[in-house]
Amino acid sequence: MDRVSIAVLGCGRIGRMHARVLARHEKTRLAAVYDVVPEAAAETASELGVPAAASVEAVLADPGVRAVLIASPTPTHVDLIIAAAKAGKAILCEKPIDLDTGRAQACEQAIRAYSPIIMLGFNRRFDVSFSALRQRAQAGEIGRIEQVVITSRDPEPPPMTFVRASGGIFRDMMIHDFDMARLLVGEIAEVHTMAACLIDPEIGAAGDYDSAMVLLRARSGALVHINNSRRSAYGYDQRLEVFGAKGMLIADNPRATTVRASAAASTDCADPLLHFFIERYAEAYAAEVRHFIDCLHQGVAPEPTFADGLEALRLADAAEESAKTGHTVRLS
Amino acid sequence: MDRVSIAVLGCGRIGRMHARVLARHEKTRLAAVYDVVPEAAAETASELGVPAAASVEAVLADPGVRAVLIASPTPTHVDLIIAAAKAGKAILCEKPIDLDTGRAQACEQAIRAYSPIIMLGFNRRFDVSFSALRQRAQAGEIGRIEQVVITSRDPEPPPMTFVRASGGIFRDMMIHDFDMARLLVGEIAEVHTMAACLIDPEIGAAGDYDSAMVLLRARSGALVHINNSRRSAYGYDQRLEVFGAKGMLIADNPRATTVRASAAASTDCADPLLHFFIERYAEAYAAEVRHFIDCLHQGVAPEPTFADGLEALRLADAAEESAKTGHTVRLS
Amino acid sequence: MDRVSIAVLGCGRIGRMHARVLARHEKTRLAAVYDVVPEAAAETASELGVPAAASVEAVLADPGVRAVLIASPTPTHVDLIIAAAKAGKAILCEKPIDLDTGRAQACEQAIRAYSPIIMLGFNRRFDVSFSALRQRAQAGEIGRIEQVVITSRDPEPPPMTFVRASGGIFRDMMIHDFDMARLLVGEIAEVHTMAACLIDPEIGAAGDYDSAMVLLRARSGALVHINNSRRSAYGYDQRLEVFGAKGMLIADNPRATTVRASAAASTDCADPLLHFFIERYAEAYAAEVRHFIDCLHQGVAPEPTFADGLEALRLADAAEESAKTGHTVRLS
Amino acid sequence: MDRVSIAVLGCGRIGRMHARVLARHEKTRLAAVYDVVPEAAAETASELGVPAAASVEAVLADPGVRAVLIASPTPTHVDLIIAAAKAGKAILCEKPIDLDTGRAQACEQAIRAYSPIIMLGFNRRFDVSFSALRQRAQAGEIGRIEQVVITSRDPEPPPMTFVRASGGIFRDMMIHDFDMARLLVGEIAEVHTMAACLIDPEIGAAGDYDSAMVLLRARSGALVHINNSRRSAYGYDQRLEVFGAKGMLIADNPRATTVRASAAASTDCADPLLHFFIERYAEAYAAEVRHFIDCLHQGVAPEPTFADGLEALRLADAAEESAKTGHTVRLS
Repeated sequence: MDRVSIAVLGCGRIGRMHARVLARHEKTRLAAVYDVVPEAAAETASELGVPAAASVEAVLADPGVRAVLIASPTPTHVDLIIAAAKAGKAILCEKPIDLDTGRAQACEQAIRAYSPIIMLGFNRRFDVSFSALRQRAQAGEIGRIEQVVITSRDPEPPPMTFVRASGGIFRDMMIHDFDMARLLVGEIAEVHTMAACLIDPEIGAAGDYDSAMVLLRARSGALVHINNSRRSAYGYDQRLEVFGAKGMLIADNPRATTVRASAAASTDCADPLLHFFIERYAEAYAAEVRHFIDCLHQGVAPEPTFADGLEALRLADAAEESAKTGHTVRLS
Repeated sequence: MDRVSIAVLGCGRIGRMHARVLARHEKTRLAAVYDVVPEAAAETASELGVPAAASVEAVLADPGVRAVLIASPTPTHVDLIIAAAKAGKAILCEKPIDLDTGRAQACEQAIRAYSPIIMLGFNRRFDVSFSALRQRAQAGEIGRIEQVVITSRDPEPPPMTFVRASGGIFRDMMIHDFDMARLLVGEIAEVHTMAACLIDPEIGAAGDYDSAMVLLRARSGALVHINNSRRSAYGYDQRLEVFGAKGMLIADNPRATTVRASAAASTDCADPLLHFFIERYAEAYAAEVRHFIDCLHQGVAPEPTFADGLEALRLADAAEESAKTGHTVRLS
Repeated sequence: MDRVSIAVLGCGRIGRMHARVLARHEKTRLAAVYDVVPEAAAETASELGVPAAASVEAVLADPGVRAVLIASPTPTHVDLIIAAAKAGKAILCEKPIDLDTGRAQACEQAIRAYSPIIMLGFNRRFDVSFSALRQRAQAGEIGRIEQVVITSRDPEPPPMTFVRASGGIFRDMMIHDFDMARLLVGEIAEVHTMAACLIDPEIGAAGDYDSAMVLLRARSGALVHINNSRRSAYGYDQRLEVFGAKGMLIADNPRATTVRASAAASTDCADPLLHFFIERYAEAYAAEVRHFIDCLHQGVAPEPTFADGLEALRLADAAEESAKTGHTVRLS
Repeated sequence: MDRVSIAVLGCGRIGRMHARVLARHEKTRLAAVYDVVPEAAAETASELGVPAAASVEAVLADPGVRAVLIASPTPTHVDLIIAAAKAGKAILCEKPIDLDTGRAQACEQAIRAYSPIIMLGFNRRFDVSFSALRQRAQAGEIGRIEQVVITSRDPEPPPMTFVRASGGIFRDMMIHDFDMARLLVGEIAEVHTMAACLIDPEIGAAGDYDSAMVLLRARSGALVHINNSRRSAYGYDQRLEVFGAKGMLIADNPRATTVRASAAASTDCADPLLHFFIERYAEAYAAEVRHFIDCLHQGVAPEPTFADGLEALRLADAAEESAKTGHTVRLS
């Protein structure tokens, strides 16, 4: 089968990572990379031996390009999605669609006529442990799912410039956990949040939170707890616990090695956690891209869908509203 | 030093367990056991070679009895506490004080003049792992406490007769977790609950819940999540996670042995969990009683106090109110 | 049923520990304690409120004493066993029978006519994890046993005075592991040792070793590895691994609590190991004594037997011979 | 920097795996693949889009080929090494050099004049956990190394045709463990073996063993235990324990995911082990090849060396001699 020709829009940290995966993928041809900062594109292009595109338009006008991977800043997503859809390209877009749910919904309207193949970049769905846990749970191993506990803590807060543009902890960080929750228990009926600023007062001054606990009630009846922190002294902590009528499945954090150390003060000590998402989810990101390419090859619709991206955004909105009002938000 | 002479009021499962601990305790003399059902008292008395008291009055009138351990049904606690306080006895009373906070507060008023030595039976404070975790956290090992996650799941629902008299999942079961939360993060400012009946519809028909998730916000700013289930297929699940500015401490479930089995289908499999509270907290119950006796010997006030019992009850009230109204309850 | 009246001979660390267990045992009456150093006996007697016997003869002449627990120095074991057997007492004797296999065999001859009830104190058989592992293995869970790995490392070397009188690492320390090996795989056909003095040259100067690795071949065909060290920086390390045709069972070290700590440098750190045999095997020692008492009550022969003690001693002899000669020792 | 042009000799399971790694390696050009069975070479060549060489001579005569990776059957290694050395190629040769130490030593003589760059394929050195353990141990974390325990059990015995040509369990299987032992404790002074045929009598009939335990004494004084089994019901078991004066490091088996399952019969159950060496050491094989390529690029001598291969072979000889004679073998 022919290789899928794909271009990467956005050569920041995530874009470069994706470009490297695509450059080595046996079913893919990395057609071009683009960034609004030409130096960034040139550097990635040079590293991978591919052309740096002069403009988005040039990429989209190229009939040889079958798909685009959008890894540019969030505010550019909607316009790029619409342009790519009009140009008939398949789309893999990083989360979130947009910080504004209204704009994201408008985007959905705008692209509907073009029926693009579009996939949202919720990388954690492709983590080997979370994915195995989900498959085992959905195969019935633990019976009906009654409770889910999702732990998701960053190693350190992002720079304040990032915080201010991030859309807040719910849209930037917990959005992954909302997607994971939906994946496990289906649609959500109620959201309640208790959030706080315990780590860096500047985050609070910017109207955001650095610590948050959320409860969700699914339409299925299942209850979900999500906790987030912007700073975990012991590293990037990403765990999942699913409790069902017949048992429990937990996905613990992976470590770089299986070494366990014992000394006088403590025993059986494991490695530090993997530093952050780039390290922790390296394989998940690659698997995500492979899934997109496989779907293109097989002509099936990729997941997570645009609708998944919208739903996660609605849950983030609801969680923020609950944090700010102190009320539970009920979703229609 | 002389042995403390102590009588046990109530010879149900918990009362008998305490009586056995007291009968073997080197600083204690089990003076008598009493139960409203004479056969129950007689059986325990015979097993332990101690007298069965004819009445509560007889026990309290005995000047040789220095203390009473109240393990009778909850509705009798308040009257027994008041009577024992009037009689000048030291008191170790099983939780909860009463299912009605008003009655418990009235009890406090009623006994104030007698300044009894009184301790509430929150056994989990005396669990060796929870206690070590708390001491390490309070010694500053993980810095300021930001988040706490308490998991507390029973192996199976109690009989419906018990459910109906229990005061509900919050007063009967989660009350332990409220006490643990207060112990770790201090006084609580807000309570929000999502509860459901997912296991046995009869529990729901009785106006109770079998599954519950709660969020607490402490005055210190710390956030707490508690989850409870009345049925855990893998046994009595009691875990504690405390997350602070400098690290995390987790107390996992103990097992009967350290054996790990590996076979084709799965590897490193640990033992089943200890069945239920009698097995899981056997040593904690004994340590609780020892603490009470030690305090009597040393003339210091035992903990948890009556006020601790009242606060846990208020949190249970608040959690139930939140479950029923869907609103967050703010505590003054 | 009447309590078994039992006397403890030897009030050193082990003797006192046993005396405490016996003093609290519900089916036992601690009749007396004796030590060649009267102050040692007096101290234990006073602590437990029992008489200090004036002499061994006095103990053995007392028709009210049904059994003796021998916890005196090893060189006294044989004489005490013979005297107790002649006096018709049941005997629980600490390991080893003697440092000299010839004397131990002579002891067997000497007591044969009296057919005493006699049990050897291999406490580790009564450890809850090792015992569970053995029962599961013998119930067939892992099929035919092919390999066993026994790890047994002390926290620190004993004083040189102890080392010189100990009979050496094989008779003092590894003798427990030989008993465990026999328990798991039956009689042993071959022993090969590599031993060294890596920790304290004084131990080597005394003709002993502080580090040893042994291979055993059982008559069943199973292979066994035992490793010993006189110094483990991370504490008293006692593990057991049994590998069979259908799987593997491992008994890991227990810890005081289930707390796991995570910080920047390492994660999931468990507690230090329990310090030494008194802490590690506290419950095993108590279970050992209970087994002895139960056997007396039930009229069944207790295990481990005198013959078990002899066999472990023969294996220790063989291991030492192999260490010194470099040859494999074949047992008839 | 230019890519290193490399050819793969031998397209069996291991050869194909290496060829795939080389085909994707960014600093390498897979010049050709060769197999004595033309179909095997053609299949691999077709899969990877590279030429299938007509003969070894053709490969070696190609001045564009800088290096060869020898993954052909063991009996061909020596001739290929000599031919490649004469042709001035750098060599990465799978272990073992040969089943006959004499031939391997003759090979060393034969190639000495050509001073080839040559590396032996002990893949386990490149396992991320074993490698981290070794680096930490050698950095002094646990002080002087006193004891090493190496566990190495295959999931199932190889076919009898393989067994008969394999050189036996020591040269085929335990040779990896000998290399690991040398890496950790340096040169070995004594070898003692107890081996048995417990799994498949046909293996014994072929003069081989399926179960083996070995003790090594290093010149440093350290003691090493290695155990091997040709059949592990719970999968490919590869563990390493290093015990030193200041602590212990253990490298446990990795699993495919971090999922832990709890149900009524057992809790905290991990995944099955990775099936066999192809899965378990996939990354180690790739790291091994990368190390070879990096050394070529940097002009430094790669490790493990030919001498390492020879020493492992001598240890295998010694272990077999000890198994057959029952004597300890001392190495000069």
